[in-house]
Amino acid sequence: MKITFVTSNLHKAREAAGILNGIAEVEHVELECPEIRNDSVAEVAKGKAAYAYEKLGRPVITDDTGFFVSALNGFPGSCAAFVQKTIGNEGILCLLSDKTDKSAWFETGIAYADEDGVSVFVGRIDGTVVSPKGVHGFGYDPIFSVGGKTLAEMSEEEKNAISHRSRGFLALRNWLVTR
Amino acid sequence: MKITFVTSNLHKAREAAGILNGIAEVEHVELECPEIRNDSVAEVAKGKAAYAYEKLGRPVITDDTGFFVSALNGFPGSCAAFVQKTIGNEGILCLLSDKTDKSAWFETGIAYADEDGVSVFVGRIDGTVVSPKGVHGFGYDPIFSVGGKTLAEMSEEEKNAISHRSRGFLALRNWLVTR
Repeated sequence: MKITFVTSNLHKAREAAGILNGIAEVEHVELECPEIRNDSVAEVAKGKAAYAYEKLGRPVITDDTGFFVSALNGFPGSCAAFVQKTIGNEGILCLLSDKTDKSAWFETGIAYADEDGVSVFVGRIDGTVVSPKGVHGFGYDPIFSVGGKTLAEMSEEEKNAISHRSRGFLALRNWLVTR
Repeated sequence: MKITFVTSNLHKAREAAGILNGIAEVEHVELECPEIRNDSVAEVAKGKAAYAYEKLGRPVITDDTGFFVSALNGFPGSCAAFVQKTIGNEGILCLLSDKTDKSAWFETGIAYADEDGVSVFVGRIDGTVVSPKGVHGFGYDPIFSVGGKTLAEMSEEEKNAISHRSRGFLALRNWLVTR
């Protein structure tokens, strides 16, 4: 089968193609999908997939990612992109400076839509917020540590092996295989 | 004419009815409208109005409000409600503690939709972020000061006389009168 990944990010499309290899051929299309304002990345991804399927009329994947800090009640959550571009990692560290609990997690919703409807898969990775370290990746990667290393200290392969997004894609892969 | 204000907030509906008095009769309906994720309150309000008009088939008003802090690059912006419920006013004050520019503004988008399409009006009020004062209002009102008084130190009438939302409604009123 052939699946269209609607994303403006070529890296994500390549990652998906790797994980779904042998199950589906992944093609990559850029399509502006309206995103809903919702605290759940699964709901945001679902909305985008429904829209993209209606527009394209063939099996599609969409994704949405949030960053959740426990001591900040889940902030920045699904506002992660906006928060990154306004107050940035400096802001997150400032808000956490007097908190003892530094735990946080990334969550990605991967939505798949075809003629049978929309299914959504969530991948999550838990870690802690630390002072910025590393030069790879983007966004919150330098301040998010898993097993003693920030995501920005990992190569793309290392990161993809454990990332929230790859876990979401693996869940999709398992579902595609067994359904 | 009769306009339906789609809001779950009875106070807002009464405020609109007062401002549009003599121009339109305002009725109040609760309808869950999906909100788009967008940095512009005008765009969010427009999306809701288009949806509500499609569902109800009669002239509708919807609104959306953001809170913008200059030194934080417009944060929390249209994520204002989510930011208020996670990091709250304490978080905003923490982020601003080392900034000298304390200026901020509220912006409300008021969208009106009928058979001719969707029009949107923006009301804005400028002020400064201060330590919490006052017991009225909600959200950012206690830390937002205009002319030496926070919105939470004002009565509902005082606040309505100068508020971002009332300015948006006035712009709508003027447009309805002259079109």
